[in-house]
Amino acid sequence: MPIQALRDLVRDEMNAVDAVILEQMRSDVPLIPLLGQYIVQGGGKRLRPLLLVAMARMLGYRGERDLALAAVVEFIHTATLLHDDVVDESNLRRGRDTANAVWGNQASVLVGDFLFSRAFEMMVGDGDIRVLQILSTASRTLAEGEVLQLAKTGDLETTEEDYNEVIRCKTAALFDGAARVGAVVAGVDSAIEEAAAAFGSHIGYAFQLVDDALDCVASAAEMGKSPGDDIRDGKMTLPVIHALQYMDAVAVDRLGEIMTKETPSDEDVHWALSAVESCGGVAYTLARAGGYVDLALEALVQLPPSPIRDQLEEVARFTLTRRS
Amino acid sequence: MPIQALRDLVRDEMNAVDAVILEQMRSDVPLIPLLGQYIVQGGGKRLRPLLLVAMARMLGYRGERDLALAAVVEFIHTATLLHDDVVDESNLRRGRDTANAVWGNQASVLVGDFLFSRAFEMMVGDGDIRVLQILSTASRTLAEGEVLQLAKTGDLETTEEDYNEVIRCKTAALFDGAARVGAVVAGVDSAIEEAAAAFGSHIGYAFQLVDDALDCVASAAEMGKSPGDDIRDGKMTLPVIHALQYMDAVAVDRLGEIMTKETPSDEDVHWALSAVESCGGVAYTLARAGGYVDLALEALVQLPPSPIRDQLEEVARFTLTRRS
Repeated sequence: MPIQALRDLVRDEMNAVDAVILEQMRSDVPLIPLLGQYIVQGGGKRLRPLLLVAMARMLGYRGERDLALAAVVEFIHTATLLHDDVVDESNLRRGRDTANAVWGNQASVLVGDFLFSRAFEMMVGDGDIRVLQILSTASRTLAEGEVLQLAKTGDLETTEEDYNEVIRCKTAALFDGAARVGAVVAGVDSAIEEAAAAFGSHIGYAFQLVDDALDCVASAAEMGKSPGDDIRDGKMTLPVIHALQYMDAVAVDRLGEIMTKETPSDEDVHWALSAVESCGGVAYTLARAGGYVDLALEALVQLPPSPIRDQLEEVARFTLTRRS
Repeated sequence: MPIQALRDLVRDEMNAVDAVILEQMRSDVPLIPLLGQYIVQGGGKRLRPLLLVAMARMLGYRGERDLALAAVVEFIHTATLLHDDVVDESNLRRGRDTANAVWGNQASVLVGDFLFSRAFEMMVGDGDIRVLQILSTASRTLAEGEVLQLAKTGDLETTEEDYNEVIRCKTAALFDGAARVGAVVAGVDSAIEEAAAAFGSHIGYAFQLVDDALDCVASAAEMGKSPGDDIRDGKMTLPVIHALQYMDAVAVDRLGEIMTKETPSDEDVHWALSAVESCGGVAYTLARAGGYVDLALEALVQLPPSPIRDQLEEVARFTLTRRS
C-alpha cells in the first residue's frame, strides 16, 4: 500500500509524532485522554501529519519542529471529526462506535474544543508566526466549510461550484496547510513552498472527491461505515449533484424527498444509491478526482526528486484506486 | 449600575470593540454572521472585553491593539456559550431563545468552532507571542474546565475542591487572561501585570460563585433563565455541594435522585432549591464570593489610582449585590 510505504520512509518521525500526540493529550481531567486516545487510535490514516512530515523531510529538514506541528494538524482534524460525528449523529466511523456513541455528544463537543485549543497552544509553543498564520487560517476555513455544508444540507439547488467551495474549505485547506507548514519549517523559497502547498491542496480535493464517490458505492465492510451515509444525512455531494442533472422529473422528486427526510428507509437509500450511480454520479466524481491527481502530480515535479517524492507520487495515484 | 458606569469611562473604545466584532464575524457563509450576531447581541454584559480594555486604558495604553484583543476574548467566550447551550440542552439564555433552539445544535457547534478559530486568527494578526501564549492557555484551560464539569455531573461525591478547580478553569482563567492581556499591551512591569491578572482571576471566581448562588434563588424574570437550571442539568455547584453536608440522610437521597434524573419535575426542582437554600448553600456560596471580592480589591490597590480603578472597585463590590 503506497501510504504504508510512504510511512515507512519516515517511520521514526511518525512514531515520534504518535508520542507527541499521546503526551499532549495528557490532562488532569481523565475523560480527555480517554476519549482522545479512543478517536486518535481509531484506525485513522494520519494522512495530514504524514504529509507534513514527508514534505519537511523531503525538503531537507532534520530538526524536531515538524513532529509537534504534525501532531497539531492531527488534533485539528480530530477535533473536527468529533464535532462532525455529533453534527451528523453518526454512530459508526471506520467500523467502530463513534466517540459520541460511547461517551455522548456532550463529551465529544467539549473534548473537541480541548483538542482544538491544545493544538493552538502547541503552535504557540513552536513560536513561528508564519506557521500560526497558515494553520489559524486553515482552521477558520475548515469551520466555514463545515457551516457551509450544513447550510446546503438537503438543498437540491446546490451547484457543483457550491460543492467545490465546501470541499476546498473543509478538506483541501488543511491538506494545503499541512504541506505548506512542512515546506516552511524546511526553510525553502516561496516557489517550492507554493508547489508543496498546491500538491497538498490538490491531494485534499482528490481525497474528498473519492471519499464522496465511495460513499455511493462501497460496501459497509470495505468502508468501515454504511454506504449512503451522506444521502442519509442529506449531504449534497458531487455524485448526487451531478446525477440530479441526468434524472427524469419523477426520479428527481423521489431523490429530493429522500435527501430531505429525517430518517430515510434502507430501501430509500438503496434506490438513491442505484439512481445516483446509474446516472453517472460516481463515474463523474471519480473523473474529477483524477483531474486533481493530475494537478497534484504537476505540482510534485516542481519539487526536488527523492525517494519520498517518488512515494508521494504513488500515494497521489493510489487516491483514485483506493477502496477504503 | 457600576458596570455601565465603567463602560461609560471607555465608551468610544467599547463601541470600537463592537465594530470589530461585527466586522470579524463576516463570512461568505451567511449563517455565520446571522447566528453570531444573534448571540453576541443577545444582551450579554461584555464583561471580559470590558475588563481587558479598562485595564489597558487604566495602565496608560492609547493604541488600538486592545480593541481587537477584546473582540478575541468575547469570541472565545461566545464560542463557549454556543457549545454550553448544546451540552446543557438549554433553550433559554438571558430571557431569549438560545441559538441552538433557533438554528439547531449542529449550527451552534459549527459556528462556535468558527468563532473560536477566528479568535485565533485575529490573535495571530496581532502578532504578539506573549498574548498568544496567555490566551491559548486560557482557552485550553477553559475547555478542560468544561470537560471536568461534565465529568462531575450528577456526582454527589464532588468536593468543594473539585468545584473550585472547575470554576478556576471555566471562568477565572479567561478573566485572568483578559486582564493580563490588557496589562501586557500597556507594556507594564511584571508586578503590575500580576496584580492586574489577580484582579481578573478573583473577579472571575466571585462572578461564577454569585452566578451559581443566584441559580438557586433568583426568579426566572430576574435571571433571564429558569432558576434551578443547574440542578436540572445535574451540575454540582457549590450551593449543592455545601448543602449536602448539612442535610439528613433522607434529604441527601432525594436530592441525589433529583440531580441524576434525566428530567426532574418542577416540584422536584422546587423542593431541591428550598432544601439547598435552607441548608445554607446559598449563603455559604455568597460568603465565599465575598472572600474573592476582597482578594480582588487587594490586587486592585497595587495598581495606580485613576477614575477607571475607582470604577473597577465599584464593579467588584457590585458582584455581591447583583441580582442578574
